[in-house]
Amino acid sequence: MSTRMRSADRRRLLAQATRDIILTEGEKAATVRAITGRAGMPLSSFHYVYESREEAVREVWPLLRADDSFFAVPELPEGTTMEDVIIGMVTSWFRGTAAEPLKELGELELFVHSIRTEELRALPAEFQSTYEELVIGALENAMEQLGVTALIPMRSLARMVLIVTDGASKGMLVNADAIQPDELIPPLFSGFNRFFAAVDPA
Amino acid sequence: MSTRMRSADRRRLLAQATRDIILTEGEKAATVRAITGRAGMPLSSFHYVYESREEAVREVWPLLRADDSFFAVPELPEGTTMEDVIIGMVTSWFRGTAAEPLKELGELELFVHSIRTEELRALPAEFQSTYEELVIGALENAMEQLGVTALIPMRSLARMVLIVTDGASKGMLVNADAIQPDELIPPLFSGFNRFFAAVDPA
Repeated sequence: MSTRMRSADRRRLLAQATRDIILTEGEKAATVRAITGRAGMPLSSFHYVYESREEAVREVWPLLRADDSFFAVPELPEGTTMEDVIIGMVTSWFRGTAAEPLKELGELELFVHSIRTEELRALPAEFQSTYEELVIGALENAMEQLGVTALIPMRSLARMVLIVTDGASKGMLVNADAIQPDELIPPLFSGFNRFFAAVDPA
Repeated sequence: MSTRMRSADRRRLLAQATRDIILTEGEKAATVRAITGRAGMPLSSFHYVYESREEAVREVWPLLRADDSFFAVPELPEGTTMEDVIIGMVTSWFRGTAAEPLKELGELELFVHSIRTEELRALPAEFQSTYEELVIGALENAMEQLGVTALIPMRSLARMVLIVTDGASKGMLVNADAIQPDELIPPLFSGFNRFFAAVDPA
């Protein structure tokens, strides 16, 4: 690898290598040696780019946000309700995490490591806010299509969505067969249509 | 400490020390050196008792089950419904975990470490079954008091309870203020009375 590689490129490659190791082999496997090895760089190059291993781990967080297609709301057929939308969103997200359990485990390891590590402590909350915004954006898209308005704070709705997705994902890691999403997710959001009302046509 | 301490006592003290370190300083802090230090034993004593550090970690799991008072169902006042019981159970469990966030974080670290570690991989599922049984037992106690029977499998009810408690506990670790249990938990179980019916008096 050319020693003339630009610093920003090296930084990006090392961050991606850190993410790849965490999401496949786990957080503890992401040593400086493993990171540089995966990035195809000499071990000694690491500290020209990052002060510490934790600084590289910090840069993994924004890289996690690559595939949030679960939050994309399709064109909704006639008769769809917000309850249908929420159940569909949580179920499709759950199926996505269940399809990649190692990735989900790696994200959970990154989460607990960051909470435990002083210099990374703030990241999970920032990340959670981003997630809440994604859920709110998706719900608002659906609400506009359905011509309804929310009767409770959007953030509360988003947090309930995230409570169920996080809890179901953890359950899936324990026992993949225990969480049958079509059986366990709809009852938790049943009745949520009461939190929405038709917008008065102006 | 007497070298004549019985082997079973040493084993128990080392397992308790391992648990105490994980639930206060975190899973990674539970080195053999830290464990023996906390137990007040010489470092060299560890391998007379345990083959490996992971063998001590394994014995932490059964020690976690000390305070399951959240599942104790009190005498239920007239007019209580199963929905009230479930919301009360999840809310009180949530408050318990929120009162001891370090302990909750330590349990989550133990969880991800065990899932990742071949020789500990089966433990979280065993633990989850125990939890499910506790929830089922508590619900059955309440059902008997209220004279109702369940219309869906008890295990499904227990899993929905655990999805919400796990998700809410994770959210609490991210941002303690974000999870207001009285706002976010009741809507998720609203309508659950439909899963129960009065027992025909024989």
